[in-house]
Amino acid sequence: MTVRIGVIGAGVMGADHVNTLHRYVPAAEVVLVADTDPARARAAADSVPGARTADDARAVIADPSVDAVIIASHDSTHADLAVAAVEAGKPVLCEKPLAPTVAECVRVVRAERAAGGGLISLGFMRRFDPGHVELREALGEGRCGNARLVHCVSRGVSAAPGAITEFSVTGSAIHEFDTVPWLLGSPVEAVSWHAPDGESAPGLRDPQLMLLHTADGVLTTVEVFLNARYGYEVRCEIVAERGALTLAAPAPRVVTDLAGTRSTGHPADWRPRFADAYRLELLAWTDAVAAGRPSPLATAYDGLTASVVAEAVIASMKDGGRTVPVTVPEL
Amino acid sequence: MTVRIGVIGAGVMGADHVNTLHRYVPAAEVVLVADTDPARARAAADSVPGARTADDARAVIADPSVDAVIIASHDSTHADLAVAAVEAGKPVLCEKPLAPTVAECVRVVRAERAAGGGLISLGFMRRFDPGHVELREALGEGRCGNARLVHCVSRGVSAAPGAITEFSVTGSAIHEFDTVPWLLGSPVEAVSWHAPDGESAPGLRDPQLMLLHTADGVLTTVEVFLNARYGYEVRCEIVAERGALTLAAPAPRVVTDLAGTRSTGHPADWRPRFADAYRLELLAWTDAVAAGRPSPLATAYDGLTASVVAEAVIASMKDGGRTVPVTVPEL
Amino acid sequence: MTVRIGVIGAGVMGADHVNTLHRYVPAAEVVLVADTDPARARAAADSVPGARTADDARAVIADPSVDAVIIASHDSTHADLAVAAVEAGKPVLCEKPLAPTVAECVRVVRAERAAGGGLISLGFMRRFDPGHVELREALGEGRCGNARLVHCVSRGVSAAPGAITEFSVTGSAIHEFDTVPWLLGSPVEAVSWHAPDGESAPGLRDPQLMLLHTADGVLTTVEVFLNARYGYEVRCEIVAERGALTLAAPAPRVVTDLAGTRSTGHPADWRPRFADAYRLELLAWTDAVAAGRPSPLATAYDGLTASVVAEAVIASMKDGGRTVPVTVPEL
Amino acid sequence: MTVRIGVIGAGVMGADHVNTLHRYVPAAEVVLVADTDPARARAAADSVPGARTADDARAVIADPSVDAVIIASHDSTHADLAVAAVEAGKPVLCEKPLAPTVAECVRVVRAERAAGGGLISLGFMRRFDPGHVELREALGEGRCGNARLVHCVSRGVSAAPGAITEFSVTGSAIHEFDTVPWLLGSPVEAVSWHAPDGESAPGLRDPQLMLLHTADGVLTTVEVFLNARYGYEVRCEIVAERGALTLAAPAPRVVTDLAGTRSTGHPADWRPRFADAYRLELLAWTDAVAAGRPSPLATAYDGLTASVVAEAVIASMKDGGRTVPVTVPEL
Repeated sequence: MTVRIGVIGAGVMGADHVNTLHRYVPAAEVVLVADTDPARARAAADSVPGARTADDARAVIADPSVDAVIIASHDSTHADLAVAAVEAGKPVLCEKPLAPTVAECVRVVRAERAAGGGLISLGFMRRFDPGHVELREALGEGRCGNARLVHCVSRGVSAAPGAITEFSVTGSAIHEFDTVPWLLGSPVEAVSWHAPDGESAPGLRDPQLMLLHTADGVLTTVEVFLNARYGYEVRCEIVAERGALTLAAPAPRVVTDLAGTRSTGHPADWRPRFADAYRLELLAWTDAVAAGRPSPLATAYDGLTASVVAEAVIASMKDGGRTVPVTVPEL
Repeated sequence: MTVRIGVIGAGVMGADHVNTLHRYVPAAEVVLVADTDPARARAAADSVPGARTADDARAVIADPSVDAVIIASHDSTHADLAVAAVEAGKPVLCEKPLAPTVAECVRVVRAERAAGGGLISLGFMRRFDPGHVELREALGEGRCGNARLVHCVSRGVSAAPGAITEFSVTGSAIHEFDTVPWLLGSPVEAVSWHAPDGESAPGLRDPQLMLLHTADGVLTTVEVFLNARYGYEVRCEIVAERGALTLAAPAPRVVTDLAGTRSTGHPADWRPRFADAYRLELLAWTDAVAAGRPSPLATAYDGLTASVVAEAVIASMKDGGRTVPVTVPEL
Repeated sequence: MTVRIGVIGAGVMGADHVNTLHRYVPAAEVVLVADTDPARARAAADSVPGARTADDARAVIADPSVDAVIIASHDSTHADLAVAAVEAGKPVLCEKPLAPTVAECVRVVRAERAAGGGLISLGFMRRFDPGHVELREALGEGRCGNARLVHCVSRGVSAAPGAITEFSVTGSAIHEFDTVPWLLGSPVEAVSWHAPDGESAPGLRDPQLMLLHTADGVLTTVEVFLNARYGYEVRCEIVAERGALTLAAPAPRVVTDLAGTRSTGHPADWRPRFADAYRLELLAWTDAVAAGRPSPLATAYDGLTASVVAEAVIASMKDGGRTVPVTVPEL
Repeated sequence: MTVRIGVIGAGVMGADHVNTLHRYVPAAEVVLVADTDPARARAAADSVPGARTADDARAVIADPSVDAVIIASHDSTHADLAVAAVEAGKPVLCEKPLAPTVAECVRVVRAERAAGGGLISLGFMRRFDPGHVELREALGEGRCGNARLVHCVSRGVSAAPGAITEFSVTGSAIHEFDTVPWLLGSPVEAVSWHAPDGESAPGLRDPQLMLLHTADGVLTTVEVFLNARYGYEVRCEIVAERGALTLAAPAPRVVTDLAGTRSTGHPADWRPRFADAYRLELLAWTDAVAAGRPSPLATAYDGLTASVVAEAVIASMKDGGRTVPVTVPEL
């Protein structure tokens, strides 16, 4: 069975999804691409024979030829669109974050529950990155005993224009706020925020360091450095009772020895690093929708808890780095 | 446009192709799977809704619902089936080798030319391995100057049952006989064969070492070790005038530090190593067939020249390791 | 000129120094080895022709044939012996820590100053580890800009018998309390202490994580894991404005590919890891003493400041991980 | 006991030995340094208090204050000086090669035997390189079974001025002609020579590839590339029945991530690469001389056999790469 998909938002991420679905996901058919900028929608849809465009996100959700929806528009629109999709009874894959505030996340989760649940998937694609999957399996197999510490590092070449200090938390570290509990099988209970002095750009304390305490007693360090300049790099090491498990640096494909150095490249941003993760995520989501099976992706509730952690980290940031408990609201 | 594909041979390689086409290649529809063993055909077809099975390879080629054919049956059947597909005017992707002897390869190439050419693609999947592709591009960009030496290593855990000395050449090194000229853009002109004393199994001199001289003056070493025990590993280093380009070991995804060692695994055979190469090869072939474009895969002529090199290497093997010139027959 | 050296303490570290001096340091002559256990003194001195033994540390310092003294006896004896050596006007190399408490360290520093200064060197051997030296030089060259974060990791196979939580700070992390300010050229101003729940042995919270803020605004993380089981490992990464500088894992000399893994060993403890550092440290100290030049090793004051940091970390440990300022006492 | 050493030849290698002996070898006292260029002798001797200079190599050997001699002068002088030292009854460490021709090597070995044997050591320092030592031990422990193939690579930044094709064999690959039989415990019995077309400098075919067959049936490849440009690098991999043992690249001490690459340096020449090997070799030789024990270094006979292999390789070079047997002359 083919799943007819409407994609809302044709920016970098939306256009990438359109291309991945069309080229690599047999059960997916992109039928509609919407963007507030019609030219951008047209550009993204161009490579897909038969795909139409729209400038109204609501029209995508309402369109009877659309079986399922991907939300890749501006963060501020996620909550309303996710609720609309849920109310239309359509499966929806929403890019992270679920919503910019915890209150809005709660609203979305409640709306989904009211509609019977199970419609919203969240685009925490690292859960489909083969390296992260192996890391979780290796921990689960218990060869190294229980986890004790986790060290996460996330560095990029340059921050998005206008990025401010909070964005490192809500836009970048939020990946770790989902990945770490998923790896450990244990929720975050308390956090604190730390940083060296100084900014890497006006209004941006960068790098930053966050400490997470999960319910299993494990301590996690999360470094986020948006303006690290030298390349894009994501690391994760789980230090356990009898050994350490480390996400290997992704395969450089060619090593050159030249001018006295042995060097291998880093990618310039997250897309080559996680191209496989996005492909496998979209494949898993489309197959689940086609088969009427529950989605194996992160849920709306996962999106809510990640946002709750983010707000606690920001509270610590604003209060001198003190330890702040993480409390998920009643639903 | 969808390409309806018939797969001949449902062994390890054929079943793998059926699965890859079905799961990862949107434009491909596997409609027919043939094997002399009906149960094996059934098993391979089972995961593809609507796919039929057959026990007669000719029936696949003749079937009007089959647009294109994949030949993954026993090596001894490749030539006859490829000729039959060509005569039926159908695009065909033939697993290596094109045929077990040079004489048969010549027959196939002539048949294809008589039919107008361009129908046969050969499954030298390394041309689609992202590492090999980058290696070729890096050489082409000229950062390191011209190639001077190439070192290839191909090791496996254990040889196929009954494998004899010649098989290391015709069944394994034949990949390098295609890859090296493709990397260098220069044909092999002379070869010699060398080996340590002794066999790794009855009738199997193993490991072996082959030297290839290409028309550009480059010298290549090819080590093949079928019973290397420790893992499957393919290496390639191009030593050039001002630096070296090396195929990096494929990404271990997780590194474990345990029991005093830092270790990362090798795959057990070639399939995980080249899973991406097979996927991208089948995608490129299907897209070309669907669009009526020339196939970007290796051609029948490439298959012929690789077999000519293999025969020269075996001639050297039987004549004390002397240098043997490589002569491609007139067509 | 030959420097006649008396070594106090013939345990693991003292015996190692005797051997290193004798075999690798031309200007050194070990003339006297003292230990409260005469057999241990005898064993250490045995390989050195002409070396005498003693059971009284004071006798070593007083001995007219001893030009310079090494203190490698129990931590609790360091302060008194260092003061005695200073009062005897003899150059002394004291193993870390200078003394178990800040108050005692102050007493030693004052005694040295009263004697004119410059007599005490402290055995923070990492300052002579070629990797640490290169790291410091590379940072100083400014290729990567200013440091922003430092990540230190120190893991061992198993803690000393009876080690308790504080020991991770005073006995292990104290190395980083010296190394980090030395690398950055900036003193530690504030610290905090963190840990996952649970102990790795009775009375030992392990692993631990410490945060250091230096006067230059840099934030440092120090992980200490005494019972890490898998091997001894010291890491240091300096994350700077335009790149990162990382202490490479020390050369595995042979890589084995066996049983499906690529593995290289970790040493079982710190001695092979820092054998070169100890040799170069003893060489530099002996040469300076022989030439009457100032010692290039860490000073008594460096030992004092490291102990002040350690006490601040322990204060944080006992106060829920709050940030504790570091104040060096007036002298 | 101190060994008073006279060093003949104060070029790069001789000056390096003077410095290493003085700084790192306690039992050694450099008393005399000779060179045909007095200024060069003076420069080398300058850092050693009390060392005298000479311009006559014979005077060094004859000097009653010289206990043992190091020959680091021009290759063409080695044989005569080694014979003179032997006739004076003095232990001598001769840099490789023992002599430029097999006939001269035979003369030296006979002279040494006539004098009772055991006086000449040969400076094949790789036998003291910790990596090579571990490689040999790991093979000897048998964890990977018997060796089947050995792959050696030796690359440099630039050839010595005026180096011609034969020099790659007699001046560089001669190290492997000693190392490989030492690693395997088996002599070389047959060789062949191969190369890509073209020269890297006038008169210099470069790179070159040599195949060695040892008596144990193992096949070895030796790549020598003098003008490799990118750095100095020595590799050795022993491929055995159940795994591979590989000389790891020597420890980069600091890794920098900068400008999008992860890079570690190669040394510019062999001296930093083998600094430890030279130090340990000189230490072992001096200690043996001091104690009157047999030298653990390579012998004059080892130097002869390496030269015999070199001549066989050159014979193959001049005869189209045919396989040439290696025959050690009767003594």
